[in-house]
Amino acid sequence: MYTLYLSKGSSAISVQILLEEIGARYEIEEVSIADGDNAKPAYLAVNPKGRIPALLTPEGVLTENTAIIAYLAQAHASAGLMPDTAFAFAKAQALNAYIATTAHVAFAHLKRGARWADDPEAHTSMIEKVPDNIRECARIIEEHYIAGPWALGDEYSFCDPYLFLMQKWMQATGVDITEFPKLMAHRDLMLARPAVKAALARQ
Amino acid sequence: MYTLYLSKGSSAISVQILLEEIGARYEIEEVSIADGDNAKPAYLAVNPKGRIPALLTPEGVLTENTAIIAYLAQAHASAGLMPDTAFAFAKAQALNAYIATTAHVAFAHLKRGARWADDPEAHTSMIEKVPDNIRECARIIEEHYIAGPWALGDEYSFCDPYLFLMQKWMQATGVDITEFPKLMAHRDLMLARPAVKAALARQ
Ligand SMILES: N[C@@H](CCC(=O)N[C@@H](CS)C(=O)NCC(=O)O)C(=O)O
Ligand SMILES: N[C@@H](CCC(=O)N[C@@H](CS)C(=O)NCC(=O)O)C(=O)O
Repeated sequence: MYTLYLSKGSSAISVQILLEEIGARYEIEEVSIADGDNAKPAYLAVNPKGRIPALLTPEGVLTENTAIIAYLAQAHASAGLMPDTAFAFAKAQALNAYIATTAHVAFAHLKRGARWADDPEAHTSMIEKVPDNIRECARIIEEHYIAGPWALGDEYSFCDPYLFLMQKWMQATGVDITEFPKLMAHRDLMLARPAVKAALARQ
Repeated sequence: MYTLYLSKGSSAISVQILLEEIGARYEIEEVSIADGDNAKPAYLAVNPKGRIPALLTPEGVLTENTAIIAYLAQAHASAGLMPDTAFAFAKAQALNAYIATTAHVAFAHLKRGARWADDPEAHTSMIEKVPDNIRECARIIEEHYIAGPWALGDEYSFCDPYLFLMQKWMQATGVDITEFPKLMAHRDLMLARPAVKAALARQ
């Protein structure tokens, strides 16, 4: 049994999709970012960083999307979502790390500029650049990092629910996904999966 | 045999220390960020993202610090630098992911503001906030994420060379490491290791 600390519309959807894919039992604890619940003591006791998602596992709390999704794939090895060599796993991790360190961070400059600057005009300048940065991340991923149809090639893996965030960020910033045929096909395949439908319905 | 694409003074030192720790044979290919070599076609053919480090392995190129260090620890399991349960590995990965997505990104706003905004005044506002952000990352890590004396506790692991970057970023931003006894002790232990001395000398 897992507890997923989730804010609706956040990147936590990737963890939730993976929980559905592996058929795990989980409950959702809603922590609304809009209401500032992620910065309140109750949630800071779970995740002192005040960020979403966090996953309570039978062994303790895990944070960071990339760590959580790799954990779920490893701990539920029979679901077959984890590459089976150290090198293939590292390639997968490099894609996830790029999404986390570069694409997610680029997107965060849209609404979370206050993390990195106090001046409101600096936020305006940041916001202007977000679509270009998301488009560039999409280009890099499309041309160099996804094999197709799934992130790692013919086999669906733990990378796919996380890659699914790209289309969300593209949509939110007005980047045209039709410029990127692999990402577009990936989005459509994801939307057709029962696990994705179940995760979206349960939110 | 590995080839490490490295710029002096960059985060690539973490990979280099790990190569020394596992006793791997490697050569260094210098890609000077100061000279813009990371954005030139020769290096983009290795890493289309134009970022340092990249590691050429017998199986191909790997990018992203967190993916590379986990790969080296896994591929050289006899060095004993990898936690041995999925949960312990995930905790380690969460620390590494926090450093990559939050601390490294906070530090990058010091000199790489142009990634996220075009307005020079926005860069000024970003620069002002960097020390506070690095101090907050140090606090989070000190209080919640390192066991001591090493990142994961009594055993040195693949996390330690990467955590070693924190003291570098603190020094570069004037954050007083003596406020953080565990991080200070960690730095001192690291500086005393032959692998760290060898890596620093070879740069
Ligand atoms: N590096 C973290 C980032 C998590 C993150 O920033 N999540 C966002 C929601 S998608 C959040 O918590 N934002 C709330 C805030 O910044 O206050 C991860 O990958 O899990
Ligand atoms: N997410 C990447 C970040 C790598 C990164 O940004 N490296 C810096 C040097 S520490 C770099 O290449 N900077 C050059 C530039 O931005 O042009 C990783 O963890 O490897």
